[in-house]
Amino acid sequence: MKNVYFIGVGLIGGSLALDFKKNNPNMIIHGISRKDTTLNEAISLNLIDKKATLDDISNADLVIVSIPVDATVNLLPTILDKIPDTGLVVDAGSTKDAICKIVENHPKRRNFLAAHPIAGTEHSGPSAAFSGLFDRKTIIICEVEKTAFKLQEKALKLFTEIGMRVRYMNPEAHDKHIAYMSHLSHISSFMLGKTVIEKEKNERDIFDMAGSGFASTVRLAKSSPEMWTPIFKQNKANVVEILDDYIQNLIKFKEFMEADDFDEIYNEMKNTNHIKDILKGIA
Amino acid sequence: MKNVYFIGVGLIGGSLALDFKKNNPNMIIHGISRKDTTLNEAISLNLIDKKATLDDISNADLVIVSIPVDATVNLLPTILDKIPDTGLVVDAGSTKDAICKIVENHPKRRNFLAAHPIAGTEHSGPSAAFSGLFDRKTIIICEVEKTAFKLQEKALKLFTEIGMRVRYMNPEAHDKHIAYMSHLSHISSFMLGKTVIEKEKNERDIFDMAGSGFASTVRLAKSSPEMWTPIFKQNKANVVEILDDYIQNLIKFKEFMEADDFDEIYNEMKNTNHIKDILKGIA
Repeated sequence: MKNVYFIGVGLIGGSLALDFKKNNPNMIIHGISRKDTTLNEAISLNLIDKKATLDDISNADLVIVSIPVDATVNLLPTILDKIPDTGLVVDAGSTKDAICKIVENHPKRRNFLAAHPIAGTEHSGPSAAFSGLFDRKTIIICEVEKTAFKLQEKALKLFTEIGMRVRYMNPEAHDKHIAYMSHLSHISSFMLGKTVIEKEKNERDIFDMAGSGFASTVRLAKSSPEMWTPIFKQNKANVVEILDDYIQNLIKFKEFMEADDFDEIYNEMKNTNHIKDILKGIA
Repeated sequence: MKNVYFIGVGLIGGSLALDFKKNNPNMIIHGISRKDTTLNEAISLNLIDKKATLDDISNADLVIVSIPVDATVNLLPTILDKIPDTGLVVDAGSTKDAICKIVENHPKRRNFLAAHPIAGTEHSGPSAAFSGLFDRKTIIICEVEKTAFKLQEKALKLFTEIGMRVRYMNPEAHDKHIAYMSHLSHISSFMLGKTVIEKEKNERDIFDMAGSGFASTVRLAKSSPEMWTPIFKQNKANVVEILDDYIQNLIKFKEFMEADDFDEIYNEMKNTNHIKDILKGIA
């Protein structure tokens, strides 16, 4: 894994590049991006060694694709076309079903590993990248059996070296569970931000009253719409289903309040408190 | 302010006690609680110097009330009855209207300061207390003009010494804005936890997929139902109103998704992104 190309050098790509290079000082990190300014920024931040273009990946040992998931679906067949027979392409998208489907019949399917490293912050772009982002985080691998064994092995070594634990899942299960565990949180947070901003639009001073609780709950509303719109689009069915469950639970809570049934309000909260134990070690 | 009594020695009372004592080593911190085990815990954690009972406050210079807001409403008139004419009572409740109303005609109204220090974590009890919790946080004071000036002055010195910035507000405005900035976040978080736990109840392994985003958004679902049920009860009208707005925004988001209107989904997120600038310095 000498010549490594990062298509997308933002939070995820840039952070992976930093950690890969740390463990493998001889690796040459090439950056590819739509915008030259992004590449210049990535170079000045020491995320990448060199700028490159898509045509350069004909000598790639490894290509990491960390761009919005709609761009991944569009570009992935071309990327596979261009890499050598010995190369591996790994994507880092937050959806897996559409991405796996687009290459299911590609002649180089065995040169592709579908991955989702579950890590990130609400920030984006090269300046958001940092070393250590993936330490003790989970990486989901889908359809592992469809990737050439030797290539899997090399990639998983890179990911476990930087502290990730590996879990295997099929793409449909990934997309369903990630809707619950990640996509819903983003919507709840965006709509919380929207609701409060609408109410307080003439009283900006009032945000002095925001405590750390509000800040933590609304944090994901800082996330990139460019990244998240295609995720919601590709995972529409699962997201709509869980969003509807969430809305129904909120309506029930409101109805208990309107009916002055504060015993039930208490129970609703008490029964959810064990999220403490479930999340032990994550937060 | 030599003899200071804390009624409630949990997260808020205990943390205030630690910081007050740090700045005023001669202060004698007395703890009052329904449960003797809580007081023993507070003593062993060095939050308080001595155990006390309600009858002891006849020599209090200062009484800090940090217990659930329903208990505050019940107990506050008795507390005011028992303190000396030179004493001051400060409450730390997350609602202010019901608390101010219950003592509005009390003969010792000028010995009471209605306060809400906006700080906390999702943890509760004496073991959750820590020094520094209030540093650079806001304390809202209501109806300041109803408190004797010399007593206000002494209390505000204590609060500013530990790093708090003081804001003044009437109780109705406090309860309205705090519903938006704090109470709603707790409900969104509790219901997020509930929704995901219900979906994943047979697949606990799946919580491996939880990233820091989910953890941050669901953090407040670890909060104490004993503390929060009476808050929602006392602030019912404001909470129901903002909760309804939140539900309507979520429904609209879901409808945009169902209609495949991802341009609007993008706009919804883009328009909320400036929460970044609004929250600068808080998170």
